[in-house]
Amino acid sequence: MSVVGFVGLGVMGGPMAGHLVAAGKGPVWVWNRTPAKGEPLRAQGAQVAESLADLAQRCETIILCLGATEDVQEVCRALAPLARPGTLFIDHSTISPQGAEQLHAELAAQQLRFVDAPITGGSMGAQKGTLTIFLGGDPEDCGEAASSVSPYAKRAERVGGPGAGQRMKMANQIAVGGALLALCESLSFAQKAGLDLAQTRELLAGGAAGSWAFDNYGPKILASDWSPGFSIKNQNKDFRYCEETASQIGADVPGVRLVHRLLAEIEARGDGELTTCVLFEELLRRGFDS
Amino acid sequence: MSVVGFVGLGVMGGPMAGHLVAAGKGPVWVWNRTPAKGEPLRAQGAQVAESLADLAQRCETIILCLGATEDVQEVCRALAPLARPGTLFIDHSTISPQGAEQLHAELAAQQLRFVDAPITGGSMGAQKGTLTIFLGGDPEDCGEAASSVSPYAKRAERVGGPGAGQRMKMANQIAVGGALLALCESLSFAQKAGLDLAQTRELLAGGAAGSWAFDNYGPKILASDWSPGFSIKNQNKDFRYCEETASQIGADVPGVRLVHRLLAEIEARGDGELTTCVLFEELLRRGFDS
Repeated sequence: MSVVGFVGLGVMGGPMAGHLVAAGKGPVWVWNRTPAKGEPLRAQGAQVAESLADLAQRCETIILCLGATEDVQEVCRALAPLARPGTLFIDHSTISPQGAEQLHAELAAQQLRFVDAPITGGSMGAQKGTLTIFLGGDPEDCGEAASSVSPYAKRAERVGGPGAGQRMKMANQIAVGGALLALCESLSFAQKAGLDLAQTRELLAGGAAGSWAFDNYGPKILASDWSPGFSIKNQNKDFRYCEETASQIGADVPGVRLVHRLLAEIEARGDGELTTCVLFEELLRRGFDS
Repeated sequence: MSVVGFVGLGVMGGPMAGHLVAAGKGPVWVWNRTPAKGEPLRAQGAQVAESLADLAQRCETIILCLGATEDVQEVCRALAPLARPGTLFIDHSTISPQGAEQLHAELAAQQLRFVDAPITGGSMGAQKGTLTIFLGGDPEDCGEAASSVSPYAKRAERVGGPGAGQRMKMANQIAVGGALLALCESLSFAQKAGLDLAQTRELLAGGAAGSWAFDNYGPKILASDWSPGFSIKNQNKDFRYCEETASQIGADVPGVRLVHRLLAEIEARGDGELTTCVLFEELLRRGFDS
Protein backbone atom coordinates (compact mmCIF):
# COMPACT_ATOMS: atom_id res chain seq x y z
CA MET A 1 0.00 0.00 0.00
CA SER A 2 1.21 3.48 -0.81
CA VAL A 3 1.74 6.15 1.83
CA VAL A 4 -1.69 7.45 2.80
CA GLY A 5 -2.73 10.83 4.17
CA PHE A 6 -6.03 11.41 5.97
CA VAL A 7 -7.44 14.93 6.34
CA GLY A 8 -10.45 15.56 8.59
CA LEU A 9 -10.54 13.62 11.85
CA GLY A 10 -14.08 14.31 13.02
CA VAL A 11 -16.81 11.94 14.24
CA MET A 12 -16.50 9.97 10.99
CA GLY A 13 -12.92 10.59 9.87
CA GLY A 14 -11.32 9.86 13.25
CA PRO A 15 -12.39 6.22 13.54
CA MET A 16 -11.91 5.67 9.78
CA ALA A 17 -8.28 6.82 9.99
CA GLY A 18 -7.92 4.58 13.03
CA HIS A 19 -8.97 1.56 10.95
CA LEU A 20 -6.35 2.49 8.31
CA VAL A 21 -3.64 2.57 10.97
CA ALA A 22 -4.84 -0.72 12.48
CA ALA A 23 -4.76 -2.40 9.06
CA GLY A 24 -1.00 -1.84 9.11
CA LYS A 25 -0.61 -1.70 5.35
CA GLY A 26 1.83 1.24 5.48
CA PRO A 27 2.44 4.67 7.01
CA VAL A 28 -0.65 6.82 7.65
CA TRP A 29 -0.19 10.59 7.93
CA VAL A 30 -3.05 12.54 9.45
CA TRP A 31 -3.96 16.22 9.63
CA ASN A 32 -6.81 18.14 11.17
CA ARG A 33 -7.63 21.84 11.38
CA THR A 34 -7.86 21.41 15.18
CA PRO A 35 -4.49 19.68 15.82
CA ALA A 36 -5.61 18.10 19.11
CA LYS A 37 -7.76 15.64 17.14
CA GLY A 38 -4.57 14.10 15.74
CA GLU A 39 -3.27 13.05 19.15
CA PRO A 40 -5.43 9.94 19.73
CA LEU A 41 -4.34 8.75 16.27
CA ARG A 42 -0.68 9.41 17.04
CA ALA A 43 -1.16 7.14 20.05
CA GLN A 44 -2.53 4.45 17.71
CA GLY A 45 0.53 4.69 15.46
CA ALA A 46 -0.33 7.40 12.93
CA GLN A 47 2.13 10.14 11.93
CA VAL A 48 0.77 13.64 12.49
CA ALA A 49 1.66 16.01 9.62
CA GLU A 50 2.80 19.52 10.56
CA SER A 51 0.75 21.14 7.83
CA LEU A 52 -1.30 20.35 4.72
CA ALA A 53 1.86 21.06 2.71
CA ASP A 54 3.81 18.54 4.79
CA LEU A 55 1.09 15.91 4.23
CA ALA A 56 0.86 16.63 0.49
CA GLN A 57 4.56 16.11 -0.01
CA ARG A 58 4.68 12.78 1.84
CA CYS A 59 1.62 10.92 0.50
CA GLU A 60 0.58 9.13 -2.70
CA THR A 61 -3.05 8.77 -1.65
CA ILE A 62 -4.91 11.56 0.16
CA ILE A 63 -8.24 10.80 1.80
CA LEU A 64 -10.57 13.65 2.77
CA CYS A 65 -13.45 13.54 5.24
CA LEU A 66 -14.65 17.14 5.51
CA GLY A 67 -17.88 19.13 5.44
CA ALA A 68 -19.40 21.07 2.57
CA THR A 69 -18.35 21.63 -1.07
CA GLU A 70 -16.43 24.80 -0.19
CA ASP A 71 -14.36 23.02 2.50
CA VAL A 72 -13.29 20.30 0.09
CA GLN A 73 -12.46 22.84 -2.62
CA GLU A 74 -10.37 24.86 -0.20
CA VAL A 75 -8.36 21.88 1.03
CA CYS A 76 -7.87 20.38 -2.45
CA ARG A 77 -6.69 23.71 -3.82
CA ALA A 78 -4.23 24.01 -0.94
CA LEU A 79 -2.91 20.47 -1.43
CA ALA A 80 -2.78 20.27 -5.23
CA PRO A 81 0.22 22.54 -5.99
CA LEU A 82 2.38 20.56 -3.55
CA ALA A 83 1.10 17.05 -4.24
CA ARG A 84 3.18 14.46 -6.11
CA PRO A 85 2.12 13.86 -9.74
CA GLY A 86 -0.51 11.14 -9.96
CA THR A 87 -1.65 11.48 -6.35
CA LEU A 88 -5.10 9.93 -5.82
CA PHE A 89 -7.58 12.08 -3.86
CA ILE A 90 -10.46 10.13 -2.28
CA ASP A 91 -13.19 12.41 -0.96
CA HIS A 92 -15.62 10.96 1.61
CA SER A 93 -17.37 14.28 2.26
CA THR A 94 -20.93 14.71 1.00
CA ILE A 95 -20.64 17.60 -1.47
CA SER A 96 -22.61 18.65 -4.54
CA PRO A 97 -22.23 16.29 -7.54
CA GLN A 98 -21.34 19.34 -9.64
CA GLY A 99 -18.64 20.33 -7.14
CA ALA A 100 -17.19 16.82 -7.38
CA GLU A 101 -17.15 16.89 -11.19
CA GLN A 102 -15.43 20.26 -11.12
CA LEU A 103 -12.76 19.11 -8.66
CA HIS A 104 -12.13 16.02 -10.78
CA ALA A 105 -11.48 18.27 -13.79
CA GLU A 106 -9.39 20.80 -11.85
CA LEU A 107 -7.13 18.12 -10.39
CA ALA A 108 -6.88 16.21 -13.69
CA ALA A 109 -5.48 19.41 -15.26
CA GLN A 110 -2.69 19.21 -12.64
CA GLN A 111 -1.93 15.49 -13.26
CA LEU A 112 -3.80 14.55 -10.11
CA ARG A 113 -6.63 12.05 -9.71
CA PHE A 114 -9.93 12.51 -7.85
CA VAL A 115 -12.60 9.99 -6.80
CA ASP A 116 -15.81 11.09 -5.07
CA ALA A 117 -16.47 8.55 -2.35
CA PRO A 118 -19.36 9.59 -0.06
CA ILE A 119 -20.24 7.19 2.69
CA THR A 120 -23.32 5.84 4.41
CA GLY A 121 -23.62 3.88 7.64
CA GLY A 122 -23.33 6.62 10.24
CA SER A 123 -20.89 7.09 13.10
CA MET A 124 -21.58 3.50 14.17
CA GLY A 125 -20.48 2.28 10.73
CA ALA A 126 -17.30 4.40 10.95
CA GLN A 127 -16.47 2.92 14.36
CA LYS A 128 -17.16 -0.64 13.30
CA GLY A 129 -15.54 -0.22 9.89
CA THR A 130 -18.71 -1.29 8.09
CA LEU A 131 -19.43 1.73 5.89
CA THR A 132 -20.93 1.56 2.41
CA ILE A 133 -18.99 3.77 0.00
CA PHE A 134 -20.25 5.02 -3.37
CA LEU A 135 -17.33 5.61 -5.76
CA GLY A 136 -17.52 8.01 -8.72
CA GLY A 137 -14.60 8.47 -11.12
CA ASP A 138 -12.40 6.68 -13.64
CA PRO A 139 -12.69 2.88 -13.35
CA GLU A 140 -9.00 2.34 -12.52
CA ASP A 141 -8.95 5.11 -9.91
CA CYS A 142 -12.14 3.72 -8.32
CA GLY A 143 -10.56 0.26 -8.16
CA GLU A 144 -7.52 1.70 -6.40
CA ALA A 145 -9.77 3.73 -4.07
CA ALA A 146 -11.87 0.65 -3.20
CA SER A 147 -8.71 -1.12 -2.12
CA SER A 148 -7.47 1.86 -0.08
CA VAL A 149 -10.73 2.25 1.87
CA SER A 150 -11.28 -1.47 2.46
CA PRO A 151 -10.19 -1.32 6.14
CA TYR A 152 -13.37 0.58 7.03
CA ALA A 153 -15.79 -0.46 4.27
CA LYS A 154 -18.37 -3.25 4.20
CA ARG A 155 -18.84 -2.32 0.53
CA ALA A 156 -17.06 0.14 -1.76
CA GLU A 157 -18.50 0.08 -5.26
CA ARG A 158 -18.06 2.20 -8.38
CA VAL A 159 -21.43 3.63 -9.40
CA GLY A 160 -20.31 5.72 -12.40
CA GLY A 161 -18.01 8.53 -13.57
CA PRO A 162 -17.02 11.72 -11.70
CA GLY A 163 -19.90 12.94 -9.49
CA ALA A 164 -21.85 9.66 -9.67
CA GLY A 165 -20.85 8.76 -6.11
CA GLN A 166 -22.44 12.00 -4.92
CA ARG A 167 -25.54 11.42 -7.06
CA MET A 168 -25.93 7.99 -5.43
CA LYS A 169 -25.51 9.64 -2.03
CA MET A 170 -28.31 12.08 -2.96
CA ALA A 171 -30.58 9.13 -3.87
CA ASN A 172 -29.66 7.62 -0.50
CA GLN A 173 -30.43 10.82 1.41
CA ILE A 174 -33.79 11.16 -0.37
CA ALA A 175 -34.72 7.70 0.91
CA VAL A 176 -33.27 8.39 4.37
CA GLY A 177 -35.31 11.61 4.63
CA GLY A 178 -38.52 9.82 3.64
CA ALA A 179 -37.86 7.02 6.13
CA LEU A 180 -37.26 9.58 8.89
CA LEU A 181 -40.56 11.28 8.13
CA ALA A 182 -42.40 7.94 7.99
CA LEU A 183 -41.08 7.01 11.42
CA CYS A 184 -41.61 10.36 13.15
CA GLU A 185 -45.04 11.02 11.63
CA SER A 186 -46.26 7.55 12.48
CA LEU A 187 -45.03 7.59 16.09
CA SER A 188 -46.22 11.14 16.79
CA PHE A 189 -49.66 10.17 15.45
CA ALA A 190 -49.63 7.05 17.64
CA GLN A 191 -48.78 9.08 20.72
CA LYS A 192 -51.62 11.54 20.10
CA ALA A 193 -53.94 8.60 19.34
CA GLY A 194 -53.28 7.22 22.83
CA LEU A 195 -51.41 4.12 21.64
CA ASP A 196 -48.51 2.63 23.55
CA LEU A 197 -45.39 3.94 21.79
CA ALA A 198 -43.14 0.96 22.51
CA GLN A 199 -45.80 -1.47 21.30
CA THR A 200 -46.41 0.64 18.19
CA ARG A 201 -42.73 0.73 17.29
CA GLU A 202 -42.32 -2.96 17.84
CA LEU A 203 -45.47 -4.07 15.96
CA LEU A 204 -44.89 -1.76 13.01
CA ALA A 205 -41.16 -2.54 12.69
CA GLY A 206 -41.99 -6.18 11.97
CA GLY A 207 -44.32 -5.54 9.03
CA ALA A 208 -44.71 -3.62 5.78
CA ALA A 209 -43.83 -0.37 7.59
CA GLY A 210 -40.49 -1.74 8.78
CA SER A 211 -37.23 0.07 8.07
CA TRP A 212 -33.68 0.64 9.27
CA ALA A 213 -35.03 3.89 10.76
CA PHE A 214 -37.70 2.03 12.77
CA ASP A 215 -35.04 -0.36 14.09
CA ASN A 216 -32.31 2.21 14.82
CA TYR A 217 -33.99 5.58 15.41
CA GLY A 218 -37.19 4.15 16.92
CA PRO A 219 -35.54 3.22 20.24
CA LYS A 220 -33.88 6.68 20.42
CA ILE A 221 -37.29 8.32 20.04
CA LEU A 222 -38.76 6.09 22.75
CA ALA A 223 -35.92 7.17 25.05
CA SER A 224 -36.28 10.87 24.03
CA ASP A 225 -32.57 10.69 23.21
CA TRP A 226 -31.79 13.66 20.94
CA SER A 227 -28.05 13.56 21.60
CA PRO A 228 -25.91 14.40 18.58
CA GLY A 229 -25.80 11.66 15.97
CA PHE A 230 -26.47 12.49 12.34
CA SER A 231 -27.29 16.17 12.83
CA ILE A 232 -30.13 18.23 11.43
CA LYS A 233 -27.53 20.70 10.15
CA ASN A 234 -25.79 18.02 8.09
CA GLN A 235 -29.06 16.54 6.85
CA ASN A 236 -30.16 20.01 5.69
CA LYS A 237 -26.82 20.51 3.90
CA ASP A 238 -27.38 17.22 2.06
CA PHE A 239 -30.97 18.18 1.23
CA ARG A 240 -29.72 21.42 -0.34
CA TYR A 241 -27.50 19.39 -2.69
CA CYS A 242 -30.42 17.02 -3.41
CA GLU A 243 -32.65 19.92 -4.41
CA GLU A 244 -29.93 21.64 -6.46
CA THR A 245 -29.28 18.42 -8.36
CA ALA A 246 -32.98 17.60 -8.71
CA SER A 247 -33.60 21.00 -10.19
CA GLN A 248 -30.74 20.47 -12.70
CA ILE A 249 -31.95 17.03 -13.83
CA GLY A 250 -35.67 17.85 -13.62
CA ALA A 251 -36.49 15.35 -10.87
CA ASP A 252 -39.46 15.82 -8.55
CA VAL A 253 -38.46 15.50 -4.88
CA PRO A 254 -41.57 16.56 -2.94
CA GLY A 255 -40.66 14.43 0.09
CA VAL A 256 -37.23 16.02 0.42
CA ARG A 257 -38.70 19.49 0.11
CA LEU A 258 -41.20 18.68 2.87
CA VAL A 259 -38.69 17.16 5.31
CA HIS A 260 -36.17 19.91 4.52
CA ARG A 261 -38.76 22.57 5.35
CA LEU A 262 -39.56 20.87 8.67
CA LEU A 263 -35.89 20.38 9.65
CA ALA A 264 -35.00 23.92 8.55
CA GLU A 265 -37.53 25.24 11.09
CA ILE A 266 -35.76 23.29 13.82
CA GLU A 267 -32.33 24.51 12.67
CA ALA A 268 -33.62 28.09 12.56
CA ARG A 269 -34.56 27.76 16.23
CA GLY A 270 -30.92 26.96 17.00
CA ASP A 271 -31.27 23.18 17.40
CA GLY A 272 -29.29 22.21 14.27
CA GLU A 273 -26.81 20.10 16.24
CA LEU A 274 -29.52 17.72 17.52
CA THR A 275 -30.04 14.39 15.83
CA THR A 276 -32.60 14.30 13.01
CA CYS A 277 -35.13 12.11 14.83
CA VAL A 278 -36.05 15.06 17.04
CA LEU A 279 -38.46 15.64 14.13
CA PHE A 280 -40.78 13.43 16.22
CA GLU A 281 -41.03 16.18 18.86
CA GLU A 282 -41.44 18.87 16.22
CA LEU A 283 -44.45 17.02 14.76
CA LEU A 284 -45.92 16.47 18.24
CA ARG A 285 -45.73 20.21 18.83
CA ARG A 286 -47.75 20.96 15.71
CA GLY A 287 -51.48 20.56 15.08
CA PHE A 288 -53.28 19.05 12.09
CA ASP A 289 -52.52 20.77 8.78
CA SER A 290 -50.10 23.24 10.40
CA MET B 1 -63.55 -23.85 18.76
CA SER B 2 -67.00 -22.44 18.21
CA VAL B 3 -68.77 -22.44 14.85
CA VAL B 4 -67.19 -19.70 12.78
CA GLY B 5 -68.61 -17.63 9.94
CA PHE B 6 -66.45 -15.72 7.46
CA VAL B 7 -67.92 -12.91 5.37
CA GLY B 8 -65.88 -11.36 2.51
CA LEU B 9 -63.82 -13.80 0.46
CA GLY B 10 -61.70 -11.38 -1.57
CA VAL B 11 -57.93 -11.30 -2.17
CA MET B 12 -57.36 -11.24 1.59
CA GLY B 13 -60.45 -12.95 3.01
CA GLY B 14 -60.37 -15.93 0.65
CA PRO B 15 -57.00 -17.34 1.74
CA MET B 16 -57.65 -16.38 5.38
CA ALA B 17 -60.89 -18.41 5.42
CA GLY B 18 -58.93 -21.21 3.75
CA HIS B 19 -56.50 -21.29 6.69
CA LEU B 20 -59.43 -21.50 9.12
CA VAL B 21 -60.82 -24.51 7.27
CA ALA B 22 -57.38 -26.15 7.09
CA ALA B 23 -56.88 -25.67 10.85
CA GLY B 24 -59.83 -28.09 11.29
CA LYS B 25 -60.94 -26.68 14.63
CA GLY B 26 -64.62 -26.81 13.75
CA PRO B 27 -67.19 -25.96 11.06
CA VAL B 28 -66.48 -22.85 8.98
CA TRP B 29 -69.41 -21.18 7.22
CA VAL B 30 -68.58 -18.68 4.50
CA TRP B 31 -70.55 -16.07 2.60
CA ASN B 32 -69.69 -13.61 -0.14
CA ARG B 33 -71.73 -11.07 -2.07
CA THR B 34 -70.53 -12.77 -5.29
CA PRO B 35 -71.44 -16.39 -4.46
CA ALA B 36 -68.91 -17.88 -6.93
CA LYS B 37 -66.10 -16.88 -4.56
CA GLY B 38 -67.44 -19.41 -2.03
CA GLU B 39 -66.92 -22.38 -4.36
CA PRO B 40 -63.12 -22.82 -3.94
CA LEU B 41 -63.70 -22.78 -0.18
CA ARG B 42 -66.49 -25.36 -0.43
CA ALA B 43 -63.97 -27.57 -2.22
CA GLN B 44 -61.60 -27.11 0.73
CA GLY B 45 -64.27 -28.19 3.20
CA ALA B 46 -66.11 -24.98 4.13
CA GLN B 47 -69.91 -24.76 4.31
CA VAL B 48 -71.37 -22.09 2.07
CA ALA B 49 -74.19 -20.16 3.77
CA GLU B 50 -77.25 -19.40 1.68
CA SER B 51 -77.57 -15.89 3.00
CA LEU B 52 -76.22 -13.57 5.68
CA ALA B 53 -79.26 -14.55 7.77
CA ASP B 54 -78.37 -18.23 7.38
CA LEU B 55 -74.77 -17.52 8.47
CA ALA B 56 -75.86 -15.37 11.42
CA GLN B 57 -78.12 -18.10 12.79
CA ARG B 58 -75.46 -20.82 12.59
CA CYS B 59 -72.33 -19.12 13.96
CA GLU B 60 -70.99 -18.06 17.36
CA THR B 61 -68.06 -16.09 15.90
CA ILE B 62 -68.44 -13.99 12.76
CA ILE B 63 -65.33 -12.74 10.99
CA LEU B 64 -65.59 -9.89 8.45
CA CYS B 65 -63.09 -8.96 5.77
CA LEU B 66 -64.77 -6.20 3.76
CA GLY B 67 -64.02 -2.76 2.35
CA ALA B 68 -64.92 0.62 3.79
CA THR B 69 -66.75 1.73 6.97
CA GLU B 70 -70.13 1.78 5.20
CA ASP B 71 -69.73 -1.83 3.99
CA VAL B 72 -69.00 -3.09 7.49
CA GLN B 73 -71.87 -1.10 8.95
CA GLU B 74 -74.27 -2.49 6.36
CA VAL B 75 -73.25 -6.11 6.93
CA CYS B 76 -73.18 -5.82 10.74
CA ARG B 77 -76.63 -4.22 10.77
CA ALA B 78 -77.94 -7.02 8.56
CA LEU B 79 -76.41 -9.74 10.76
CA ALA B 80 -77.09 -8.31 14.22
CA PRO B 81 -80.87 -8.86 14.51
CA LEU B 82 -80.46 -12.55 13.62
CA ALA B 83 -77.24 -13.31 15.46
CA ARG B 84 -77.17 -15.45 18.61
CA PRO B 85 -76.74 -13.50 21.86
CA GLY B 86 -73.06 -13.05 22.70
CA THR B 87 -71.85 -13.60 19.16
CA LEU B 88 -68.31 -12.23 18.69
CA PHE B 89 -67.78 -10.09 15.57
CA ILE B 90 -64.13 -9.81 14.45
CA ASP B 91 -63.66 -7.15 11.79
CA HIS B 92 -60.49 -7.34 9.65
CA SER B 93 -61.54 -4.49 7.33
CA THR B 94 -59.69 -1.17 7.57
CA ILE B 95 -62.41 1.27 8.58
CA SER B 96 -62.42 4.57 10.47
CA PRO B 97 -61.60 4.26 14.20
CA GLN B 98 -64.76 6.21 14.93
CA GLY B 99 -66.80 3.78 12.81
CA ALA B 100 -65.32 0.90 14.80
CA GLU B 101 -66.16 2.52 18.15
CA GLN B 102 -69.70 3.16 16.99
CA LEU B 103 -70.21 -0.43 15.83
CA HIS B 104 -68.84 -1.70 19.14
CA ALA B 105 -71.47 0.38 20.97
CA GLU B 106 -74.30 -0.53 18.58
CA LEU B 107 -73.64 -4.25 18.87
CA ALA B 108 -73.10 -4.10 22.63
CA ALA B 109 -76.60 -2.64 22.93
CA GLN B 110 -77.84 -5.84 21.23
CA GLN B 111 -75.86 -8.19 23.53
CA LEU B 112 -73.29 -8.75 20.77
CA ARG B 113 -69.51 -8.30 20.95
CA PHE B 114 -67.26 -6.49 18.44
CA VAL B 115 -63.47 -6.44 18.08
CA ASP B 116 -61.75 -4.28 15.47
CA ALA B 117 -58.95 -6.38 14.01
CA PRO B 118 -57.31 -4.72 10.98
CA ILE B 119 -54.47 -6.62 9.41
CA THR B 120 -51.10 -5.91 7.86
CA GLY B 121 -48.88 -8.16 5.78
CA GLY B 122 -50.52 -7.93 2.36
CA SER B 123 -51.94 -10.63 0.11
CA MET B 124 -48.72 -12.61 0.56
CA GLY B 125 -49.26 -12.59 4.33
CA ALA B 126 -52.87 -13.76 3.85
CA GLN B 127 -51.73 -16.64 1.63
CA LYS B 128 -48.93 -17.69 3.96
CA GLY B 129 -51.00 -17.15 7.11
CA THR B 130 -48.44 -14.73 8.54
CA LEU B 131 -50.53 -11.61 9.06
CA THR B 132 -50.05 -9.15 11.92
CA ILE B 133 -53.41 -8.28 13.48
CA PHE B 134 -54.10 -5.23 15.67
CA LEU B 135 -56.95 -5.95 18.10
CA GLY B 136 -59.11 -3.24 19.67
CA GLY B 137 -61.85 -4.04 22.16
CA ASP B 138 -62.57 -5.54 25.57
CA PRO B 139 -59.62 -7.58 26.89
CA GLU B 140 -61.57 -10.83 27.10
CA ASP B 141 -63.07 -10.45 23.60
CA CYS B 142 -59.62 -9.64 22.18
CA GLY B 143 -58.17 -12.76 23.79
CA GLU B 144 -60.92 -14.86 22.22
CA ALA B 145 -60.40 -13.12 18.86
CA ALA B 146 -56.63 -13.73 19.01
CA SER B 147 -57.29 -17.42 19.41
CA SER B 148 -59.86 -17.49 16.58
CA VAL B 149 -57.54 -15.79 14.06
CA SER B 150 -54.41 -17.74 15.02
CA PRO B 151 -54.56 -20.00 11.92
CA TYR B 152 -53.58 -17.03 9.70
CA ALA B 153 -51.73 -14.72 12.12
CA LYS B 154 -48.04 -14.42 12.86
CA ARG B 155 -49.10 -12.02 15.62
CA ALA B 156 -52.47 -10.92 16.94
CA GLU B 157 -52.14 -8.46 19.78
CA ARG B 158 -54.53 -6.26 21.72
CA VAL B 159 -53.49 -2.61 21.37
CA GLY B 160 -56.30 -0.97 23.34
CA GLY B 161 -60.08 -0.54 23.62
CA PRO B 162 -62.67 -0.24 20.83
CA GLY B 163 -61.16 1.54 17.78
CA ALA B 164 -57.54 1.16 18.97
CA GLY B 165 -56.87 -1.56 16.39
CA GLN B 166 -57.89 0.88 13.66
CA ARG B 167 -55.79 3.67 15.19
CA MET B 168 -52.77 1.33 15.14
CA LYS B 169 -53.57 0.52 11.52
CA MET B 170 -53.59 4.27 10.75
CA ALA B 171 -50.13 4.61 12.37
CA ASN B 172 -49.03 1.69 10.22
CA GLN B 173 -50.42 3.21 7.02
CA ILE B 174 -48.73 6.54 7.79
CA ALA B 175 -45.39 4.75 7.95
CA VAL B 176 -46.19 2.63 4.88
CA GLY B 177 -47.05 5.77 2.90
CA GLY B 178 -43.80 7.48 3.90
CA ALA B 179 -41.78 4.38 3.02
CA LEU B 180 -43.46 4.21 -0.38
CA LEU B 181 -42.61 7.84 -1.07
CA ALA B 182 -39.00 7.35 0.10
CA LEU B 183 -38.57 4.42 -2.28
CA CYS B 184 -40.26 5.94 -5.34
CA GLU B 185 -38.72 9.40 -4.94
CA SER B 186 -35.26 7.97 -4.46
CA LEU B 187 -35.42 5.58 -7.44
CA SER B 188 -37.01 8.12 -9.80
CA PHE B 189 -34.26 10.60 -8.86
CA ALA B 190 -31.63 7.88 -9.46
CA GLN B 191 -33.05 7.12 -12.88
CA LYS B 192 -33.00 10.77 -13.94
CA ALA B 193 -29.48 11.12 -12.46
CA GLY B 194 -28.27 8.39 -14.84
CA LEU B 195 -27.57 5.84 -12.10
CA ASP B 196 -28.10 2.12 -12.61
CA LEU B 197 -31.46 1.37 -10.99
CA ALA B 198 -30.72 -2.20 -9.93
CA GLN B 199 -27.43 -1.15 -8.35
CA THR B 200 -29.13 1.78 -6.61
CA ARG B 201 -31.87 -0.40 -5.13
CA GLU B 202 -29.41 -3.00 -3.97
CA LEU B 203 -26.85 -0.58 -2.45
CA LEU B 204 -29.46 1.56 -0.70
CA ALA B 205 -31.47 -1.40 0.62
CA GLY B 206 -28.47 -2.54 2.67
CA GLY B 207 -27.91 0.74 4.52
CA ALA B 208 -29.66 3.46 6.51
CA ALA B 209 -32.21 3.88 3.69
CA GLY B 210 -33.26 0.24 3.87
CA SER B 211 -36.88 -0.78 4.38
CA TRP B 212 -39.44 -3.50 3.75
CA ALA B 213 -40.57 -1.36 0.80
CA PHE B 214 -37.05 -1.35 -0.70
CA ASP B 215 -36.90 -5.14 -0.35
CA ASN B 216 -40.41 -5.95 -1.55
CA TYR B 217 -41.56 -3.12 -3.84
CA GLY B 218 -38.10 -2.29 -5.20
CA PRO B 219 -37.92 -5.40 -7.41
CA LYS B 220 -41.46 -4.71 -8.73
CA ILE B 221 -40.39 -1.20 -9.75
CA LEU B 222 -37.28 -2.56 -11.50
CA ALA B 223 -39.53 -4.95 -13.44
CA SER B 224 -42.11 -2.20 -14.19
CA ASP B 225 -44.65 -4.58 -12.64
CA TRP B 226 -47.73 -2.53 -11.72
CA SER B 227 -50.06 -5.52 -11.56
CA PRO B 228 -52.69 -5.29 -8.82
CA GLY B 229 -51.32 -5.81 -5.33
CA PHE B 230 -52.14 -3.32 -2.61
CA SER B 231 -54.12 -0.88 -4.75
CA ILE B 232 -53.94 2.90 -4.93
CA LYS B 233 -57.71 2.97 -4.35
CA ASN B 234 -57.36 1.11 -1.04
CA GLN B 235 -54.34 3.13 0.04
CA ASN B 236 -56.30 6.34 -0.61
CA LYS B 237 -59.25 5.01 1.39
CA ASP B 238 -56.89 4.35 4.32
CA PHE B 239 -55.33 7.80 3.94
CA ARG B 240 -58.79 9.40 4.20
CA TYR B 241 -59.28 7.65 7.55
CA CYS B 242 -55.77 8.72 8.63
CA GLU B 243 -56.53 12.36 7.85
CA GLU B 244 -59.97 12.26 9.46
CA THR B 245 -58.49 10.80 12.64
CA ALA B 246 -55.47 13.12 12.58
CA SER B 247 -57.77 16.11 12.33
CA GLN B 248 -59.81 14.84 15.32
CA ILE B 249 -56.76 14.23 17.54
CA GLY B 250 -54.79 17.27 16.30
CA ALA B 251 -51.92 15.27 14.77
CA ASP B 252 -49.80 16.68 11.94
CA VAL B 253 -49.53 14.23 9.03
CA PRO B 254 -47.82 16.21 6.26
CA GLY B 255 -46.33 13.08 4.66
CA VAL B 256 -49.70 11.38 4.36
CA ARG B 257 -51.24 14.52 2.88
CA LEU B 258 -48.45 14.66 0.29
CA VAL B 259 -48.59 10.99 -0.73
CA HIS B 260 -52.40 11.07 -0.71
CA ARG B 261 -52.39 14.05 -3.09
CA LEU B 262 -50.00 12.25 -5.45
CA LEU B 263 -51.93 8.96 -5.40
CA ALA B 264 -55.28 10.78 -5.75
CA GLU B 265 -54.02 12.22 -9.06
CA ILE B 266 -53.29 8.71 -10.29
CA GLU B 267 -56.70 7.45 -9.13
CA ALA B 268 -58.40 10.41 -10.81
CA ARG B 269 -56.82 9.34 -14.10
CA GLY B 270 -58.55 5.95 -13.74
CA ASP B 271 -55.54 3.94 -12.53
CA GLY B 272 -56.79 3.32 -8.97
CA GLU B 273 -56.58 -0.47 -9.33
CA LEU B 274 -52.82 -0.41 -9.97
CA THR B 275 -50.41 -1.19 -7.18
CA THR B 276 -49.17 1.77 -5.14
CA CYS B 277 -45.56 1.58 -6.32
CA VAL B 278 -46.60 2.95 -9.71
CA LEU B 279 -45.96 6.23 -7.84
CA PHE B 280 -42.41 5.76 -9.20
CA GLU B 281 -43.69 6.38 -12.76
CA GLU B 282 -45.85 9.28 -11.64
CA LEU B 283 -42.79 11.02 -10.14
CA LEU B 284 -40.72 10.27 -13.27
CA ARG B 285 -43.40 11.98 -15.35
CA ARG B 286 -43.17 15.15 -13.30
CA GLY B 287 -40.49 17.87 -13.30
CA PHE B 288 -38.79 19.58 -10.37
CA ASP B 289 -41.17 21.40 -8.04
CA SER B 290 -44.23 20.36 -10.03
